[in-house]
Amino acid sequence: MSRSHGEFELIRRLAARVGECEAADVVGIGDDAAAVLRDGKWLLLTCDIAVEGRHFRLGKAAPADVGWKVASANVSDIVACGGKAEHALISLGVPPHVSEDQLEALYGGIAEAAQSYGFFVLGGNVSRSQELIVDVFMTGTAQRFIPRGGARPGDRIALSGPLGDSAAGLELLDVRQRAAANDHENRLIRSHLRPRARDDLVESLQQGASAAIDISDGLSSDAGHLAEASGVRLDLERSRLPVSPDLQAFARSRDAAHWKWVLHGGEDYQILFTFPREHDPVFEAAGIAVVGEVRAGHGVYLDGEMLIPEGWDHLAE
Amino acid sequence: MSRSHGEFELIRRLAARVGECEAADVVGIGDDAAAVLRDGKWLLLTCDIAVEGRHFRLGKAAPADVGWKVASANVSDIVACGGKAEHALISLGVPPHVSEDQLEALYGGIAEAAQSYGFFVLGGNVSRSQELIVDVFMTGTAQRFIPRGGARPGDRIALSGPLGDSAAGLELLDVRQRAAANDHENRLIRSHLRPRARDDLVESLQQGASAAIDISDGLSSDAGHLAEASGVRLDLERSRLPVSPDLQAFARSRDAAHWKWVLHGGEDYQILFTFPREHDPVFEAAGIAVVGEVRAGHGVYLDGEMLIPEGWDHLAE
Repeated sequence: MSRSHGEFELIRRLAARVGECEAADVVGIGDDAAAVLRDGKWLLLTCDIAVEGRHFRLGKAAPADVGWKVASANVSDIVACGGKAEHALISLGVPPHVSEDQLEALYGGIAEAAQSYGFFVLGGNVSRSQELIVDVFMTGTAQRFIPRGGARPGDRIALSGPLGDSAAGLELLDVRQRAAANDHENRLIRSHLRPRARDDLVESLQQGASAAIDISDGLSSDAGHLAEASGVRLDLERSRLPVSPDLQAFARSRDAAHWKWVLHGGEDYQILFTFPREHDPVFEAAGIAVVGEVRAGHGVYLDGEMLIPEGWDHLAE
Repeated sequence: MSRSHGEFELIRRLAARVGECEAADVVGIGDDAAAVLRDGKWLLLTCDIAVEGRHFRLGKAAPADVGWKVASANVSDIVACGGKAEHALISLGVPPHVSEDQLEALYGGIAEAAQSYGFFVLGGNVSRSQELIVDVFMTGTAQRFIPRGGARPGDRIALSGPLGDSAAGLELLDVRQRAAANDHENRLIRSHLRPRARDDLVESLQQGASAAIDISDGLSSDAGHLAEASGVRLDLERSRLPVSPDLQAFARSRDAAHWKWVLHGGEDYQILFTFPREHDPVFEAAGIAVVGEVRAGHGVYLDGEMLIPEGWDHLAE
């Protein structure tokens, strides 16, 4: 349930109409996944929707890519709460211009994801609609629920991998077909079409993370959500942010610095998280980049300057 | 996850691409809800989508009605498996022509349903789309999972209440506004816009039902699904099918017999179920109508004649 600012505000307003659930054994609106404590374990619930023309274009993304990606976005929400994906339901809205072969290919992409991440598809439904809509609901389990709101002053800030590759890949897709001119461009396009949720991190997060969020709307937006939920200030160091050689080559080819993509590009599905310093050995062993420190205060700062969100808003026209 | 024939076949084909889950502690595609055995209880998972222009028209249904109804459809799927609804996520696709006030009203209808049925909305997401889409995912819990496939020859067939009122209400809506000429028409319209899932039946179903399905696509379709899943023949008696006085009055005003609506009308959300004869006292006490008997064989028969499905297909144009 990743979302950007406008969407987030609307959900908050709508939530007020429904009445939030305040029980100690339930986590509701405002985290990557909802969570319910059952028999000592957290049942995680999340959903992510992919709408044609907004989240993907069928001329640019193959149907299998669309299936893989929406499944990965859901797995990423589960991972960000420290959980393992278990079961999924798939709701499809199918317009007349989408063939059954395309639908089967889309399901094929979800099947690849299911096998790769280890979840099972248990059902769903199909309806007619004007544009292709793939809405995935997913459950997961976590021994401990890792919230957005658990960061404390003095904690380290860590990032699971480089950002910006997916946004660069999208720009390449906008001007080219899926197969691009060279290897680094192909890898960037693949980062956009076939992002990998960081399910390999769940054990480390369980061992030490105090807060976590997945980067789906861009670092500047999602870091802000974590800072706000935790009531802290995040101080990031530019020189410590991991940047892929592919993005560096892409930025050079555009005569641009790579920061625009690193700071504001969405859909990389890396995990931004915090941990108390005593857990340094856990995350050093996992090869995780420390990119800053949690301080008292509020907001997100990069080398001491406030970082203004420019993330993707799925409600923007 | 109620569905009609075309939709059902497509889901089966797509499911083959995903790989069905065959474990003894999991119920996958082909029942009203999926189910996972956890710590001795069944976790039920279902989703139902409402698409503007297909499942509702905003000029005919108030946004609050749309919210109530899609929530009720989900609760009905949980009830049909013998469960109690617990938590929900709401995915919205919002077109530019729908205002935030309308969205709040829609959420208000979901909130009414949540309070009435006793479930909690824990989250969701919002995206832009071309038509209004409300996709509800719901979880529930059942001590015992009641499948479609549990009916055995000799069992009674029971129906929780009259059918056809919702379909008649839809016809009235097509020619009138929400407020109709007389009380019986208003009640039929309300049956269509504000159906009540039969959550009052869960305890009785738990005590004695061998199989159950909710009537969302019409008796002729849904009885066929139960017969097929159980590998039995259902013999229904016309004279025992409950018919509301409102539907009788409506049919008289159209110079028609009421059977068309009773046998093929969808979205009444009554429960068709079977039970072994030794449980007669349980269901007599609950005031449930026995409408026929399970026999060896296959298909659905009404007074000895095969009943051909003419249910609603959400994939039909």
